[in-house]
Amino acid sequence: MVSDPADRAGAVLDIDLGAIAANWRLLAARVAPAECTAVVKANAYGLGIAPVAAALAAAGCRTFFVATLDEGIGLRAILGKNAEISVFNGPLAGTEAEFAAHRLVPVLNDLGQIESWRRLAVKAPLPHRGRGRDPSPRDGRLRATAADPPSPASGLRSSAPSPAMRERVNCSAMLHVDTGMARLGLSSRELVTLVGDPDLRQGIRWAGIMSHLACADTPDHPLNAAQLTRFSAARAHFPGLRASLAASSGIFLAGEFHHDLVRPGAALYGVNPRPGGPNPMRQVVTLKGKIVQVREIDSGESVGYGAAHVMSGPGRLATVAVGYADGWLRALSHRGCGRIAGRRVPLVGRVSMDLASFDVSAIDPASARPGDSIELLGADYGVDDAAADAGTIGYEILTALGARYHRRYRAAGSQ
Amino acid sequence: MVSDPADRAGAVLDIDLGAIAANWRLLAARVAPAECTAVVKANAYGLGIAPVAAALAAAGCRTFFVATLDEGIGLRAILGKNAEISVFNGPLAGTEAEFAAHRLVPVLNDLGQIESWRRLAVKAPLPHRGRGRDPSPRDGRLRATAADPPSPASGLRSSAPSPAMRERVNCSAMLHVDTGMARLGLSSRELVTLVGDPDLRQGIRWAGIMSHLACADTPDHPLNAAQLTRFSAARAHFPGLRASLAASSGIFLAGEFHHDLVRPGAALYGVNPRPGGPNPMRQVVTLKGKIVQVREIDSGESVGYGAAHVMSGPGRLATVAVGYADGWLRALSHRGCGRIAGRRVPLVGRVSMDLASFDVSAIDPASARPGDSIELLGADYGVDDAAADAGTIGYEILTALGARYHRRYRAAGSQ
Repeated sequence: MVSDPADRAGAVLDIDLGAIAANWRLLAARVAPAECTAVVKANAYGLGIAPVAAALAAAGCRTFFVATLDEGIGLRAILGKNAEISVFNGPLAGTEAEFAAHRLVPVLNDLGQIESWRRLAVKAPLPHRGRGRDPSPRDGRLRATAADPPSPASGLRSSAPSPAMRERVNCSAMLHVDTGMARLGLSSRELVTLVGDPDLRQGIRWAGIMSHLACADTPDHPLNAAQLTRFSAARAHFPGLRASLAASSGIFLAGEFHHDLVRPGAALYGVNPRPGGPNPMRQVVTLKGKIVQVREIDSGESVGYGAAHVMSGPGRLATVAVGYADGWLRALSHRGCGRIAGRRVPLVGRVSMDLASFDVSAIDPASARPGDSIELLGADYGVDDAAADAGTIGYEILTALGARYHRRYRAAGSQ
Repeated sequence: MVSDPADRAGAVLDIDLGAIAANWRLLAARVAPAECTAVVKANAYGLGIAPVAAALAAAGCRTFFVATLDEGIGLRAILGKNAEISVFNGPLAGTEAEFAAHRLVPVLNDLGQIESWRRLAVKAPLPHRGRGRDPSPRDGRLRATAADPPSPASGLRSSAPSPAMRERVNCSAMLHVDTGMARLGLSSRELVTLVGDPDLRQGIRWAGIMSHLACADTPDHPLNAAQLTRFSAARAHFPGLRASLAASSGIFLAGEFHHDLVRPGAALYGVNPRPGGPNPMRQVVTLKGKIVQVREIDSGESVGYGAAHVMSGPGRLATVAVGYADGWLRALSHRGCGRIAGRRVPLVGRVSMDLASFDVSAIDPASARPGDSIELLGADYGVDDAAADAGTIGYEILTALGARYHRRYRAAGSQ
């Protein structure tokens, strides 16, 4: 009675986990002996964090990055206790104890996050403090049950760690210094403050120091060298810390950008890390939209909302059950395209919420009937191609991929 | 130990169910005695079909429209057996029996869908058929258990109805005639065929006839009158059938566009159905993004990817945990804005996947600290305003609203 979800869905999204694993191995080989991690934030760039992270772990990846606490908690459940999971955004106020409870390594982006995290580091009691910071624990319960000396962990606002949790506290963190993004990370002024006062960083087990390149996809941009120089200067203050600067595109800059650890995301999922050059990565996604209806149309007839497309001759249109509510961005109106048996079929008119129309006049009618599919993403037209037509980047094509698509995963071991 | 999800999330999306109900009542009053339905496809335009549909039903709505079978099945579970649920895309081949099992009313968009649906109409056995269509049941089991005379329902491919299901078969359907969208609906040629051969539509309990306006948001567009004329001509072939032409914007055209039933969607959710004029609808969504970090920045420093924004003077930036992976479209780069205590703060640089930066130089520092929020959608800057900045329409701002937002619903009865 119940039909196959693939038959029922307006579109089928195939995700090649083998290609993701191969992409990770390619990058890992390129940067060795540096460690290759994997960025799986935003639901693994829209592709599904559970299968993607599992495939990456099976390929050998040991360190993962997400953006938020909730993503980190979800990933911990997927990967189990041995994976290292870092959270780019760091702890929002009041969430520090949850980071520790799930053994998530926050990226600490400013002095405020460092101070909050340091308060949690109850397992590594601080030496004498002072200088106006309140050294007196405010949580009597914590003091009463603590076997350790009184610690500043009690400065936590809404989530003081329980004794049981304290056993699991992991005070590791990564230090993020900004070198040219002006987005997250310590400013140069904050870095001077941190360097000048060792107390500010006491008690935290530092897992590494990182920064983020703003123009890595433009190898000749002068900011790349400037950021490298600034990062080297920042690192010099923290000898022995593992260092990380490069993400997907940074991996394809000179080897001096690799440091100890790289953080690819987009390249794992098939986005070209070297825009303008040949794509060294394997394509990961194939999206096929179902044709709901095919119609003959006369010259001069208009198509879609706003009557914004007018047929210049008679033809045939196929209406596909994919629209901007599926992340097939409305910016693809008049500009996107699909493929039927390798032949291009242009998207005509405006993308609707649930539908888009393609001109299939040049296609054998036997290949474009209701129930047949038009390939919207694939080998001939990848995420970067769709992005170029939409005036955006492949990253956004991926993260916008819709919830109504039926998702099928090709296992890493299969052909 | 576990923090409030609203504290943990990078952004909080408040959805005012009372405003949705009020919008529905406003439209219902405007079109009475025509029936006002509600379009809740695409997860109620991104706002959550379960709470939204329940609020609309409580307000008095009895008929709902979705786009796909799966949306219809989900909505049936939410609303129970008494609501009428129509599915715009109609049945993809092989899914007809599931429509019937869940008492979904398909919109039939071409002769193929009409033929497939007619085969299912086992409870209304057809008179003599023939003309090359196969009248002989292929499913022996069905014949053997059927109390009714042999029927063409057995022509179903993958999902012949079981005897139990047959008891529940609902052969209602809406007829969709295209009058100028060239997207879905019978073409004028198909309509001639259908009108000329009563056998083609026998056995189906017709719930109504509908079409869809292409330019209703542009009242002076000549296509509106042309579509009205074509729709009137099509209706004349089906006397007594309930008729529906207007969606949100069509409701604000002349009363002759209202017919028996209107199908608002966007207007329910606060999108202005009369672009360019004052918005008669109440705003429904408020989106507040959490500030992760605030930084001082010097004149001449660049911001974000591509170093695409350069500060013209010293200032302060707030980085908010909302990015294009949350549906805060990358097209808002350099153009969007937010509000702090009613004051505009411009979005600077490119929107990142998980973050966006706002210039808060003009804001009292005490009102823009980490953990504070920037209002991204609200009374001062609604979905249509964000859409204008992004070069799209409010509909896409809504359907793109991200899965990482913490959603809070204000009940219809609360203030």
